[in-house]
Amino acid sequence: MGYKVEVGISNKHLHLSEAHLAALFGAGHKLTVKKELKQPDQFAAEEVVDIVGPKGTLKGIRVLGPCRKESQVELAQTDARGIGLSLPVRESGVLDGSPGVKLVGPAGEVTLDKGAIIALRHIHLSPAQAQEAGVKDKDWVTVKASGSRPLIFEKVLIRSGDTHLRECHVDTDEGNAAGLKNDDTVEIIGKSE
Amino acid sequence: MGYKVEVGISNKHLHLSEAHLAALFGAGHKLTVKKELKQPDQFAAEEVVDIVGPKGTLKGIRVLGPCRKESQVELAQTDARGIGLSLPVRESGVLDGSPGVKLVGPAGEVTLDKGAIIALRHIHLSPAQAQEAGVKDKDWVTVKASGSRPLIFEKVLIRSGDTHLRECHVDTDEGNAAGLKNDDTVEIIGKSE
Repeated sequence: MGYKVEVGISNKHLHLSEAHLAALFGAGHKLTVKKELKQPDQFAAEEVVDIVGPKGTLKGIRVLGPCRKESQVELAQTDARGIGLSLPVRESGVLDGSPGVKLVGPAGEVTLDKGAIIALRHIHLSPAQAQEAGVKDKDWVTVKASGSRPLIFEKVLIRSGDTHLRECHVDTDEGNAAGLKNDDTVEIIGKSE
Repeated sequence: MGYKVEVGISNKHLHLSEAHLAALFGAGHKLTVKKELKQPDQFAAEEVVDIVGPKGTLKGIRVLGPCRKESQVELAQTDARGIGLSLPVRESGVLDGSPGVKLVGPAGEVTLDKGAIIALRHIHLSPAQAQEAGVKDKDWVTVKASGSRPLIFEKVLIRSGDTHLRECHVDTDEGNAAGLKNDDTVEIIGKSE
């Protein structure tokens, strides 16, 4: 072990289904690429929406593209609490039983019946990188962050496949708790039960 | 080792000097106790102020009492970034070189020239509790949090003396990153270099 991985700190963001994109931005609207992300084909879009919770609104939250089968809102717990939500920690795409929120775009509103989550921390690896690290898809690993607030994350999920490239995704609460910034390096130091 | 400690999650708050209390709330104003805290003689006050940073304002932030020699604003990095500040992680009372902020109260404003920090995570212990745990004041320890987002905090500062009682203080970023809530239990599992 001792395999080094660059960090990407995920700020609050959302993914939209084609239907919700149309409802929020107008029929036929296509997302505009603002910035390519490290994961293949993923991008931050120019489009932003407001996220409305029971006790407040997060304004101008960025949409990531391309569109997905289901809309998904990813907040850190700090963000969620600020608008009156307590969210479950979930792997991306595992949305059953998660709370909904209202989304407000320039052309309309959508009230999700589920899809607001705190993203489970995870590491993307290509198949070759996973082999090099001695891990495989769906493994749980322990990750050491040696920044200004050193800590060891247990239970970090490995996601490996052809559409993944090496990157450790944590949310802003986790990044701040560890004193990490984007492109800092963390280290896989072992398997996690 | 393996010494158990209850968690207290510190939300953003501030401490005021007598002079700043007078400037913000009026000459002769005394803090009103809203809730006693676990540490002896410390309390959350009824009084709140607005904290103004370069890019925004945190409204209604609670004052903790009693007054101190120097005013001190304690934010999590998420809070700080939200108002355009990047703050150093500091032990309480070690304020030289930390940024100032503007405070707005019902009777006036104060612009601090220093005092805004992210509190260094720490454990309060009475002398007897420190002896029981096998640690002493100013030791650094490693602390295991076995909640829904398990992690190990390295470099947690021990603060022990007659005015301390057992409690592990982390900020909201750290508490959220570990999936902790108030009164959850963490464990000192060793010394930290």
